[in-house]
Amino acid sequence: MERVPVLKIGDILLVSIQIDMEDQVALQLQEDLAEKIVATGCHGVIIDISALDIVDSFVGRTLATIASVSRVLDAETVVVGMRPAVAITLVELGLSLPGIRTALNVELAITMLARSRAELEAGFELSDDDEDEADSAAVTAP
Amino acid sequence: MERVPVLKIGDILLVSIQIDMEDQVALQLQEDLAEKIVATGCHGVIIDISALDIVDSFVGRTLATIASVSRVLDAETVVVGMRPAVAITLVELGLSLPGIRTALNVELAITMLARSRAELEAGFELSDDDEDEADSAAVTAP
Repeated sequence: MERVPVLKIGDILLVSIQIDMEDQVALQLQEDLAEKIVATGCHGVIIDISALDIVDSFVGRTLATIASVSRVLDAETVVVGMRPAVAITLVELGLSLPGIRTALNVELAITMLARSRAELEAGFELSDDDEDEADSAAVTAP
Repeated sequence: MERVPVLKIGDILLVSIQIDMEDQVALQLQEDLAEKIVATGCHGVIIDISALDIVDSFVGRTLATIASVSRVLDAETVVVGMRPAVAITLVELGLSLPGIRTALNVELAITMLARSRAELEAGFELSDDDEDEADSAAVTAP
């Protein structure tokens, strides 16, 4: 069975979708991603769809599900590389990918994820609290 | 026509091969990569083949050609994610991918490329000489 590989780069998981997203492939990808988020503790997922000519409602739903599952596992999802024609068709079809963040390319997505992670951590007023360092035990209650 | 996307991450171009490498796809990928190396000035190319069940002599030749073209354009190629079964089959077929560097995953490849780049630059005894900074003009002849 065909399988979309999940690549780990630092704190981010990168997926480049190139094959047709049939039911089984989509389910397998969701499962692989969820398992890898838990195994690695990554906080960001970048999905590159620059190879896709068409994003139909099924692919749109798959992306939305991946984003929701990732969010539950404390990871943020960014979709990158959408072709202009795909964006136009999506909107014409009434699919605006609600709940999915997008960026033009992988580098911009990495910056976006790093920034929103930093804001999130600043919001907790506890820096480095989610890193697997022993000194997190030294954080005292406010 | 199907096309393998080339993703830029910092100083590195990343390609994840998931579709069958037919003649046209392989030629297009070689062309895309060469153009992108020139356009971006990247010094590293990482090719992920973790999605491939089979690496035959054609794919092996394609990888070797990509590595050679990249080298001519001052970029180094690392192949990552080879499955154990693929490695065994390759050697049994007498294909040992000469001239191609490999790493187990993308992160190790990034480290490898950064180290060999640093060594290369140290060899010239001119650090930062290939970066597009104006201070390179200030380097005096030894």
